[in-house]
Formats: sequence, C-alpha cells, structure tokens
Amino acid sequence: MSKKKSKKSKKTSATPFSDALRVGQGFVLDDVDTRDTPAFDGDKKDGQEALRAADDEMDDLQEQLYAHGTSGGTEKILLLIQGLDTAGKGGIMRHVVGAVDPQGTQITAFKAPTKEELEHPFLWRIRKALPGAGMIGVFDRSHYEDVLIVRVEELVPKATWSRRYSTINDFEQELVADDTTLIKVMLHISKDEQEERLAERLDNPEKYWKYNPGDIDTRERWDDYMEAYQAIMDKTSTDTAPWHVVPADRKWYARLAVQQLLLEHLRALDLQWPEADFDIDTEKARLAAS
Amino acid sequence: MSKKKSKKSKKTSATPFSDALRVGQGFVLDDVDTRDTPAFDGDKKDGQEALRAADDEMDDLQEQLYAHGTSGGTEKILLLIQGLDTAGKGGIMRHVVGAVDPQGTQITAFKAPTKEELEHPFLWRIRKALPGAGMIGVFDRSHYEDVLIVRVEELVPKATWSRRYSTINDFEQELVADDTTLIKVMLHISKDEQEERLAERLDNPEKYWKYNPGDIDTRERWDDYMEAYQAIMDKTSTDTAPWHVVPADRKWYARLAVQQLLLEHLRALDLQWPEADFDIDTEKARLAAS
Repeated sequence: MSKKKSKKSKKTSATPFSDALRVGQGFVLDDVDTRDTPAFDGDKKDGQEALRAADDEMDDLQEQLYAHGTSGGTEKILLLIQGLDTAGKGGIMRHVVGAVDPQGTQITAFKAPTKEELEHPFLWRIRKALPGAGMIGVFDRSHYEDVLIVRVEELVPKATWSRRYSTINDFEQELVADDTTLIKVMLHISKDEQEERLAERLDNPEKYWKYNPGDIDTRERWDDYMEAYQAIMDKTSTDTAPWHVVPADRKWYARLAVQQLLLEHLRALDLQWPEADFDIDTEKARLAAS
Repeated sequence: MSKKKSKKSKKTSATPFSDALRVGQGFVLDDVDTRDTPAFDGDKKDGQEALRAADDEMDDLQEQLYAHGTSGGTEKILLLIQGLDTAGKGGIMRHVVGAVDPQGTQITAFKAPTKEELEHPFLWRIRKALPGAGMIGVFDRSHYEDVLIVRVEELVPKATWSRRYSTINDFEQELVADDTTLIKVMLHISKDEQEERLAERLDNPEKYWKYNPGDIDTRERWDDYMEAYQAIMDKTSTDTAPWHVVPADRKWYARLAVQQLLLEHLRALDLQWPEADFDIDTEKARLAAS
C-alpha cells in the first residue's frame, strides 16, 4: 500500500461521474453522444494521466475493503459491464480492473449459456459468481443478456423474457440489501465506431482470433439491440440499482469513467482500517521470544 | 497489445532463472542463501527496472497463449507458489501476476480446508481450481500444504501423509500430460527476515489485519517446517515437474525471479498467433454491407 495521496486531476469537473452518467427518468439512449466526455474537461492525454493518477487511492480503498472483509465486514462491490461487441469491455478488464490487486478482484465473463446453465433459472449461474465479503466482483456481460440477445433473437417466448425485468429488479434489491454496492455500466458506442473496430480486427493478423463472424449477425440487428437496451434502462434503472451509460467511442474516456465510478462508490463506503483483534503487546512479546 | 519489443535487461545473466533455481539431485534447502540473487547481477533498482522492462513481452506471450486457447489450443500454465507466512506470496500476486491481463489469469488461494473439502480426497479442491486451456492458473499455497502443515501438526496419521508424495507425483504427471506447464516455486526466507516482517505488521495499524497470532505458532515450529520442505524437494522435484527455490529475503529479487520463470516457460511454448478460421475477404464484404 502506498503512502502517497492521489493527486486529484485538475481536469475532473466538480460533478461526480456517477451523477453525470446516471440513467434517470425520461432517459433516451438515442440522444447520447457516444463521443462525449461527461464530467471530464480534458483531452486524451489528460484522461490517461488522470487514470494513472488515481491508482494509489484505488489501491488504498480496495485494500481497506478487502481488509474489512477479512475482519467480519460484509460489504462487497459488484461492477457489471454491458456493451455490444467491440464496445471495450476487454479494455476495461485489462486497464481498469487489471490495475487493482488481483487478490481482491474476481472477473466472470458470461458467454452463451452451457446446457447445464440452460437447465436452470437464468439467475442460477449469476448467483454462483457473486462476490464474497471484501471483494470486487466484475461481470463481463451478465443477467442482462437474458433480456438482450434472448429478446432480440427470440430465444425464449416473449411472455418469459418480459417477466425477467421485474425478476432482475427483485434480485438486485436483494444484493443491495446484502451490502453489495452494485455499479451497472453500459459502454455505448456508435455503429460507425463499431465498424472501424471490427475492420481493425480483420486487418491485423494478431487480432484475427478476436473476430467472430457472429459479430456481423449481431450488428445487422443494431436497432433491435438499441431498443432492447432502451427497455433495460426504462425498466431496471432503479434508485437502488441505477444504470450508468458511458459514451465509449473514446476508449480513454470510457476507462477513466469506469475507474472513477468504482472510486466514487468505494469512497462512499467510508471504510477504515480494522482494529487489531489481538493484544499488540502480547504478540510483540511472543514474536521476540520465538 | 504493444508493438514494442521488451528490452533484455543487461543485468540478467546468461543462465536462465529456471536453471539457476531448479532443485536437482542432492539439493539441501539449508544451504540456500536467502539473500542471494541467482541469475541476476544487479541491485534493487536494476531489478525493479528489469521487472517492468519485461511487461511488454509478458503481455504478448500471455495474449498468444490465451488466443491459442480460444482457437482449440490445449496449453495452459499452472504457477504454484509455496512459502511460509510473510514469504511474499501476496506481493507476487500483486506485482507479478497483477501485471498480466486479469482475463487470462486465475488466482486460487488455498486456506485451511472447509468441512466439505475435508470430506473429499485432498486433491479434490485442487482439481476444481485447475486452469482451462489458454489460461495462467496461479495457486497461492496448494496440495503441498497436505504434506506441510498436515505433516508438522500431525493432522492425519503418518501412514496417510507419507503416501501423498507419490500421489502428488502421479497427479502432476497427469497435468503435464494434459499440456499443463507446471511451474513450482518455493519462496524461501530466513527466520530473521520473517521476524522483521511480522514486527512490521505489529507496528503499523494499516497492517494489523494481515497479522494472525497463529503465525507465531507456525514460526515456533520453523525447523519442522524446513524438514517438511526438504522432504518435498527430495520426493517431488521430478524431471517433468521440478521445484524452483527462490531466495526471498529481497522482495524485488523474488518478484523478478518468479516473473522470469513464468516468462521463460511461456517462451518455451513457442506459440504463434492463430490463423483466421473464417474467410477474410468474405467477412470484409459482410462488414462493409452491414
């Protein structure tokens, strides 16, 4: 743990990222400018500097959360990241989550469900991956796929998926009541930006492995996906578990925004270092004698 | 992925770390100088520079391993770290494993077994944590605790633990046959160094949570633990799954050594980027039309 206090970047505005990005009443996804940089006035270089300037504070806060978890504290964080292919989920994992002590983080990437997972209710695999006390759990995709691809591709009847929104709200209330700080993030890119990023994968032999012809099938249903995302925002951005839509055409901004969301929520926990649960002088004497 | 080639540090000697640290015939743990820096000629500053200088190459090699795993490749890595309390296992997780993409690594910390784990054979919980194709699994403690604390504290009869060495050798042969590169590391500190590190935890309120009175109980049986480690080296450092003993009184050296061991084993896999498993021109046309 570093002693240095993080420098607050001058370019970070007074508005918290959580306020600037929160999805409230009357939110319209289509009105979001995917190249915007809410709550931040700087350019790419400023953004990259601000990202690294927050590392020390992040280290301290994460270690306090973890320490708290080893000492009977029940708080935990769940950072849930959604976004279409190429929206930058992998970059968030690498550059934001990857900057945090890996012993205190736990990433779960939800792929197409297995046969066993399909034989259970849709939240079954989600519940198995929930973070324990003191941990920062990170979901790369989530239970929201069950009202996204499932809805767009009609993988189950409408009567089934349309019931899921309220099931999800109940589930998330339950998590929050269990001392989970839930941070829901949608990385929002434009269709043009996605084209560029897919083209890059097709142009670079080192990126072929990231390309999946199925990505084009999804892209061809862009409007349906946007409609499904709008429905999610309308139905599941609640007071206790609000969504944050992060404009993601600029990768540096999306990374900074997710880091700052995490940081703001960690600060809000206002944790302290746990007291010693042993007698310090006794232990010093035992150590000296050993 | 960065294009830059890693600079080979001038201070890294021509001897690979895997050769310099490998436990061979006639190895005597007690003869190891815990302040030594095998295969490295530099000081702390050089060591820290060498650690960061290898980041880009590590990124590339790890990403190739991961890419390989998504494309039908079966190779995986298992880095197994043993060491007494304060030996620096946490620092390895934070500074060596933590520098690698968290999507491609998977840390499992083995604590005292749960009731459920105790009801199964000792390798049961180990098998559940094995890395899948393309992954770097990391064990913070491992099945070796079942011939360490279990032996020293006589948690099971001698007839039971003494059979485990050959069970472990068979198990590890099986892993290697399944394309697992197994890297076994013991972080080896002196009793004096441990005293200093425990004293630090008792002096700093931000570190109280890391202190456990049980650490002194273990410390009081230091010689028994060294004997148990020597037995492990004698019986389980095999040609296919050799041990590496890393002098760990200097934290910077231990981190560099484990990083270089991982790097040398990744290089030895000699992987390439996977070929495209789709027709590139067809996909470019589909993208343009979408």
